[in-house]
Amino acid sequence: MPRRYLSLTTLADALSLMKRTFPPSNHTETVSLEQAVGRVTAQPLYARYSVPSGNVAAMDGYAVQSRETVGAGDRRPKVLVDAHRVNTGEVVPPMYDAVIMVEDVWREDGPLTIRKAASPGQFIRRAGDDIRSGDLIVPRGHQIRPFDIGALGAYGIADVPVRAVTIGLVPTGSDLVPIGQAPLPGQTVESNTCMAGAYLAGMGATCRRYGRVPDDSDAIREAVGAAVRESDLVIVSAGTSAGTRDFTTAAIADLGEVLVHGVATRPGKPVVIGSVDAKPVLGLPGNPVATQTMLRELVAPLLEGWGLSPYQQYGCTVRLARTVTSDVGFEEFVPVSVGKVNGVYSAAPHPRGGGVQMAAVRANGYLRIPASGEGFAAGCEVPVTLTVPPGYVDRTLLCIGVREQAITELADALTESGYLLHCCAADTIAALLALQENTCYAAAVMVPECEPLVRDLAGCYCPATEPVRVRIAAREIGIASRGGLGLPDLASARVATHPRGTAPRLLLDALLPDHGIDPFDLLIAAEVRSHDAAAAAVCGGLADAGICSAGAAAAAGLGFVPFGTESYELWFRPEVRDDGGMQEVLRILRSQQFSSRLGERQDYLTDRTGEFVTGAHGSLIGVSERSIS
Amino acid sequence: MPRRYLSLTTLADALSLMKRTFPPSNHTETVSLEQAVGRVTAQPLYARYSVPSGNVAAMDGYAVQSRETVGAGDRRPKVLVDAHRVNTGEVVPPMYDAVIMVEDVWREDGPLTIRKAASPGQFIRRAGDDIRSGDLIVPRGHQIRPFDIGALGAYGIADVPVRAVTIGLVPTGSDLVPIGQAPLPGQTVESNTCMAGAYLAGMGATCRRYGRVPDDSDAIREAVGAAVRESDLVIVSAGTSAGTRDFTTAAIADLGEVLVHGVATRPGKPVVIGSVDAKPVLGLPGNPVATQTMLRELVAPLLEGWGLSPYQQYGCTVRLARTVTSDVGFEEFVPVSVGKVNGVYSAAPHPRGGGVQMAAVRANGYLRIPASGEGFAAGCEVPVTLTVPPGYVDRTLLCIGVREQAITELADALTESGYLLHCCAADTIAALLALQENTCYAAAVMVPECEPLVRDLAGCYCPATEPVRVRIAAREIGIASRGGLGLPDLASARVATHPRGTAPRLLLDALLPDHGIDPFDLLIAAEVRSHDAAAAAVCGGLADAGICSAGAAAAAGLGFVPFGTESYELWFRPEVRDDGGMQEVLRILRSQQFSSRLGERQDYLTDRTGEFVTGAHGSLIGVSERSIS
Repeated sequence: MPRRYLSLTTLADALSLMKRTFPPSNHTETVSLEQAVGRVTAQPLYARYSVPSGNVAAMDGYAVQSRETVGAGDRRPKVLVDAHRVNTGEVVPPMYDAVIMVEDVWREDGPLTIRKAASPGQFIRRAGDDIRSGDLIVPRGHQIRPFDIGALGAYGIADVPVRAVTIGLVPTGSDLVPIGQAPLPGQTVESNTCMAGAYLAGMGATCRRYGRVPDDSDAIREAVGAAVRESDLVIVSAGTSAGTRDFTTAAIADLGEVLVHGVATRPGKPVVIGSVDAKPVLGLPGNPVATQTMLRELVAPLLEGWGLSPYQQYGCTVRLARTVTSDVGFEEFVPVSVGKVNGVYSAAPHPRGGGVQMAAVRANGYLRIPASGEGFAAGCEVPVTLTVPPGYVDRTLLCIGVREQAITELADALTESGYLLHCCAADTIAALLALQENTCYAAAVMVPECEPLVRDLAGCYCPATEPVRVRIAAREIGIASRGGLGLPDLASARVATHPRGTAPRLLLDALLPDHGIDPFDLLIAAEVRSHDAAAAAVCGGLADAGICSAGAAAAAGLGFVPFGTESYELWFRPEVRDDGGMQEVLRILRSQQFSSRLGERQDYLTDRTGEFVTGAHGSLIGVSERSIS
Repeated sequence: MPRRYLSLTTLADALSLMKRTFPPSNHTETVSLEQAVGRVTAQPLYARYSVPSGNVAAMDGYAVQSRETVGAGDRRPKVLVDAHRVNTGEVVPPMYDAVIMVEDVWREDGPLTIRKAASPGQFIRRAGDDIRSGDLIVPRGHQIRPFDIGALGAYGIADVPVRAVTIGLVPTGSDLVPIGQAPLPGQTVESNTCMAGAYLAGMGATCRRYGRVPDDSDAIREAVGAAVRESDLVIVSAGTSAGTRDFTTAAIADLGEVLVHGVATRPGKPVVIGSVDAKPVLGLPGNPVATQTMLRELVAPLLEGWGLSPYQQYGCTVRLARTVTSDVGFEEFVPVSVGKVNGVYSAAPHPRGGGVQMAAVRANGYLRIPASGEGFAAGCEVPVTLTVPPGYVDRTLLCIGVREQAITELADALTESGYLLHCCAADTIAALLALQENTCYAAAVMVPECEPLVRDLAGCYCPATEPVRVRIAAREIGIASRGGLGLPDLASARVATHPRGTAPRLLLDALLPDHGIDPFDLLIAAEVRSHDAAAAAVCGGLADAGICSAGAAAAAGLGFVPFGTESYELWFRPEVRDDGGMQEVLRILRSQQFSSRLGERQDYLTDRTGEFVTGAHGSLIGVSERSIS
């Protein structure tokens, strides 16, 4: 009978419980000055001696007795009888009380002359002017900046006592393989503790990664026990939920006490907070995004409370490009990409779901949805937290739509000119709606190369704007089958195809009537999400005909009868056309380098890459003619 | 005859010249994933394989055939005939097309039952759902964040090609001693290249510090030449101005070409930009703050242009608490401290002058004054750049006034409760003016313990507010002399004392008439800035009597006749009194720990530390009585 979670705890309660239960470890370590940047001082640091230790010149010039210079003026040059050449930082002999800059002293093959009197003390740094022995350089709790290093070194600090926390990272799971090894089905690369180590080291923690522990309760208990003995805090990766192979919770319970099992967040729900020998032991979900959430929302605040260097987070208020829903009762964190659209910060969500680690990588921020809320509607203003420096957002081109390799290649090429193109995955229709609402910089769409159909799409979903269309790439669409099935044959075939509204399906439905077939009579054996899946359905015997690309058919070793083309395009508003970012986009799309790069990938047709698409191209007739020939 | 600077170049011109002259080195290095955080990718990184490699469960539960579950409902539980237990991440056998969460499956000692149908594909992560082999993980030019590490590792990246720049750091100067060695008069600790290395490493540069080179033209030429051979960029520290021992410029000229000598900035003027073997060679001033300015304003932008990780700078618009002047023709950078005063961000400048490295350490930002301007007047709104994360500014208590060890001790103790107390040095009168203008959180003042005099000060400089006064410490003031000179003896003595308006001088001038002496008749042999200087003037024979503290007299081995007390106080507006920061200030001032800590330092009287000062204390009569007895 399945074990259920203990009643879920809110994030806020879990954190305050941890802060109450686990006071600062107050451990310190001493690091060399070179290593001290970013660390937090454990004690106030005082100057070991006075600087300068005597009176020294603040300028290159001549040490003089100021009273001897009285009366000198532009029209009354004065000869210096008693002056001593000094360079910046050199000791000024006791008998002198001022320094005159070398630029203000003349010696045309004669005596030194000045044209301006020196005031007492001028350009002299007195002993202790910079700092006196025993003065405070930086207080305790000061996060050392690179430029602080200069003063610390200059005033006698060669080693710095800093706050220290030792964290043990224990990866569990019989399915784990090390980074660098390709996982077999069911295997997972153990990168979570590497990621956690990198993140926590950034706060100044000393992390120790232990070896991978198989799903064995004794082994896990032993490993966690060992880690607790050697650490101030222990993080156990995976095995925290209610699976038959989840031993982490039990191990913590055996060794100490489980304080919390299950936090009301998404991602991150199956987290375990325990106490062993009065030290915090956290069991984090194997799901990397859940792990990230818990590191950021639970571990980092605890460590900050312990005096380590906080990560600085920067917020930003954005206009939401798409509706984001959430279940009441769960505090949810949604990866988003933020960009400036028409002068306003807009954000679009990336697809969620724990496994989608790439969403967090592609995103430049995240949206927090409180447990009390059901989410936010498109168009409303919401606060987001950035995961990049704020400056990056201003050069981010926010695209919404169909994510294909072609657009990621474009994004990669764009970085050379300083623009960051983010494409938040959505279907063509959602992309057009965002364009209509002016909440995205451009829409990435996959449309049938068939003007009337495209006109319908545009008319339905972005009637208010007359978008500029630029072609990224195209793909030949047709029928994959064991034989050479053509459109007429579909009357009596089991068909695997994309859902309605997608380019291949729109083309298919538009062409079938020419062959006396009512699209609604079509026998759909499988509705697929990719060309490969359509071809696979045929290979698997689930369907007789798969509506897919030429490349997918070829890859599956199937026959192929083309009937049209799907066009991968960027749609944007005319006012964006002369914008610097768009100019770069067009330049890259039109470069030979780019289309040859596309050619290497998938089955793109790149003959018209970068061209503006107009009504002239690919009329319905044209298409059907090509397809039937 | 003194060498003059070539005509000064503007910072902007110098930078664009460097960017034009020195294109990116395009060097790369490969680092392990653990070392990659913060570095910038030199190439796009693609997934080495698809993840997941097969269809796997997205939840702990049971793999089922969705069609078998049709019809299940709350009131119509359905028995699962064919189901397979799977844990998150485990492979879903091919015959199943959905997974039901373990929480949604019941088995009361009987068969598995469900109360809800499963939709096809539910809780199944399909092969390639996370990423497909060959998909882009991060583009080139991507600065790797800690959480990116997880995806990179998971998708097969164990080593990361990142952009690399090798920088050689050559310290010059016969006066240099290594960090950790106490400098003699005229000696300097060589911390500049350590600081530069720490700063540039933060951008991902690989820095090599060379040994200290004495002021010898051949030695410097040789050292620079060697560094150029081994580096993409060379920074020579010191020897760049017009002193008789400045060989850096000549060395660069001998080895290559001097492009710029002298940039119109303060600090930073004597900088040399040269080209040797088509590599940039910079001679930076020995003055550490000038070095910081040039690293930040010249080197960092060049390296950013070369593709290294930029330092993120955060701006803030502030109300200026004090007037800041600047010479036209020089772009000036002024260290400031920013804090929130009465809900408004205020900033006060720290004392300038190249040598004052501590100003940059004490500051949390800097103000840029354009070359075209003469500065900014107190009260006007100006943009500043922060040198700390913006969040810190909100917990910064901005004080202006007399900087004594007592207040730095207070600042140190305050950090424990999360408040950052910054005290920008200014005299008592300037502090009171800022309090009057409500541009500081508190004024740190040194006032005579003599109510009528204090009333005069307050009446003159902050009439609009009735400040709350809290005592930090006090000091006994009197006459230091070889004999036991008292106030009456001053009629015929050469006196060393502080300038008018300071506490000791106000006390003195108030008391002299009691002894028939007109303060204006006093023979001032030396006007001093510190108690120690007053005592030193007596020891040096410059004066017969020094007006100073008991401690200063004792330290100098002089006799001492007290005549009053100077009181070191924090003045603030009544509305601040209940503010969280002020509560902490008062708590600390009143703690035994604090006053005992003060006792150890200088000659503070701490008997009334933390007390509110009222008119009752120390009237003029009281004081003179004490002093004469």
